[in-house]
Amino acid sequence: MLSDSLNVSSSFPFIQACRRQPVARTPVWFMRQAGRYMKEYRDLRARHSLLEMCRTPELAAEVTLQPIRRLDVDAAIIFADLLLPAQAMGMDLQFVEREGPVLSGALRDADAVRRLKDVGDGELSYVGEAIRIVRRELAGKVPVIGFSGAPFTLASYMIEGGASRDFAQTKIMMYSAPELWRELMEKLVAVLAGFLKSQVAAGADALQIFDSWVGCLSPGDFRQYVLPYSRSLISKICGLGVPIIHFGTGTATLLELMREAGGDVIGLDWRVELDKGWERVGYDVAVQGNLDPVVLFGPRHLIEQHVDVVMRAAQGRPGHIFNLGHGILPTTPVENVQAVIQMVHSFEHHTPNRVASLRER
Amino acid sequence: MLSDSLNVSSSFPFIQACRRQPVARTPVWFMRQAGRYMKEYRDLRARHSLLEMCRTPELAAEVTLQPIRRLDVDAAIIFADLLLPAQAMGMDLQFVEREGPVLSGALRDADAVRRLKDVGDGELSYVGEAIRIVRRELAGKVPVIGFSGAPFTLASYMIEGGASRDFAQTKIMMYSAPELWRELMEKLVAVLAGFLKSQVAAGADALQIFDSWVGCLSPGDFRQYVLPYSRSLISKICGLGVPIIHFGTGTATLLELMREAGGDVIGLDWRVELDKGWERVGYDVAVQGNLDPVVLFGPRHLIEQHVDVVMRAAQGRPGHIFNLGHGILPTTPVENVQAVIQMVHSFEHHTPNRVASLRER
Repeated sequence: MLSDSLNVSSSFPFIQACRRQPVARTPVWFMRQAGRYMKEYRDLRARHSLLEMCRTPELAAEVTLQPIRRLDVDAAIIFADLLLPAQAMGMDLQFVEREGPVLSGALRDADAVRRLKDVGDGELSYVGEAIRIVRRELAGKVPVIGFSGAPFTLASYMIEGGASRDFAQTKIMMYSAPELWRELMEKLVAVLAGFLKSQVAAGADALQIFDSWVGCLSPGDFRQYVLPYSRSLISKICGLGVPIIHFGTGTATLLELMREAGGDVIGLDWRVELDKGWERVGYDVAVQGNLDPVVLFGPRHLIEQHVDVVMRAAQGRPGHIFNLGHGILPTTPVENVQAVIQMVHSFEHHTPNRVASLRER
Repeated sequence: MLSDSLNVSSSFPFIQACRRQPVARTPVWFMRQAGRYMKEYRDLRARHSLLEMCRTPELAAEVTLQPIRRLDVDAAIIFADLLLPAQAMGMDLQFVEREGPVLSGALRDADAVRRLKDVGDGELSYVGEAIRIVRRELAGKVPVIGFSGAPFTLASYMIEGGASRDFAQTKIMMYSAPELWRELMEKLVAVLAGFLKSQVAAGADALQIFDSWVGCLSPGDFRQYVLPYSRSLISKICGLGVPIIHFGTGTATLLELMREAGGDVIGLDWRVELDKGWERVGYDVAVQGNLDPVVLFGPRHLIEQHVDVVMRAAQGRPGHIFNLGHGILPTTPVENVQAVIQMVHSFEHHTPNRVASLRER
């Protein structure tokens, strides 16, 4: 059963911007807005493991809500980890201090891929539970974003066994065992589609698909090994009535193809000038981004300059959601995050969105 | 005193291609063609540390020559490490198993930057010595490429203390201490210019500047914090009479700016389609690239397909040097490297370079 998100008209500026409707002020949220840069998070994290926090709906909901209490952001994003579906499929997931996630039994052959379990309805239900709590607590204050990794990025973690610099094992499987690659990607599409649907059923107002590491691929390889599966995943969830954000980093040469795969909103990172990126994905989709997360460590006047560059590049048409180009870094000063929100919300559009939108018709 | 490289006409196809002169067959070499994927290298490495191999001219020359004996490549590149100038400037350099290079005393404040030493003539002379030996041994068989890191990439190692994923400390210095950043970059330009000049004096026939990590920057930040220094470095060495290759990875949105900074040849990685990249940097420079190094692990027919894509994208005008988009990976099968060389050399240009070149006039 789907939530009331199916209702097409929304008064949330974030949802309106996803649909390229005019908004009074540009909506803003931050990838990893729930996280280590906040004392509230660190306090909770001191008492619970990361996995405990993800898998306990009350804790995940609490972490999701922490930035909403502290920051004037326009959306909440459910606290979870990209690799939870890998765990649900039977891989052993651990978080190693300073090294990040480690999946043991990295997929290197057909047996390993075939051992992956189907994911039943209940398996990842703690995420839906957390979304339900968050929705209740928010009482309509801001919308809730659900998310998952994209098939490629999730596959890369499962094949490499964790983070990677060159994604060699992932590409080796793609190149040397294309049938196995297809089998893995199709399994992931099925699992992720089910997972995302369950999040919408629980009340998610929008979905973001993180293809964080897809920028390691050439356009030709993206087209052959990734596009069909990202498109398939998005086609399975695009009828749910919630906007879909399709995000990646280092995607300067993949933007047209990502857009071809689908999504109402395309995420841009700072390597792409926002106006040029938007031109390339087309004005019939919205864009999200694209401040360099490290700018948040700079002096205030420099942050202002950089925010201004993004806001000016976006103005002239509705459909921009302000965000970073990737997640907030763990030691980011909270007051700088607050300052950015203030800057975005108070930015005076020289060409008001509303006027531009009327002009376009 | 400069070597005979000043002589503008050269019979080396590699040098001719750098100068966009027609060649009978496309020249090819590989970044990190001297390295761990070769048994000869591993045998030597088992008896010597990496630093010993770099700093002992006979050993560095031997390693440089190993791929020339085994592979039909069109150029040798002197065996050295990007971080040797950092060591010469007083930083402690170590290579840690699986972690890569570690520079202790990472630069985080003005004192650390000011403690960096000027590099005297003799300091890095072992690299020049190795070039002299290589030139003698090669006896004109293939040209020798000298190299250094670009100011940004070297600075990033010195500030981060090693490899990095997000280059946060580097950008924090750029953003928060722009005067200190300038001071560091100017120091590096001076050191690197001297180092590169000494390599040409020793007989290097071409120079490559590795800005390997510059792709972490937005175009605006590149223009402000990197372009002036890369341009300054290149302007100091472009009168030496040897072609300069300006290389980076993840540079899809920086290509025009890299070209503005200088170089006779712009290095492209696999994220950019070679023909599109060349169009963007302009046909009045040559290009080098751009096979994904991981393709070398694939089955032969797939390698062929990928090589073919690169060769077709390059055909129609002189000025393409075949290479990977980044260095050969340590476990690459040598026979696949050999196969690629064979494919490149035997590629039949549908529009012969010579004809295209005449037509362009």
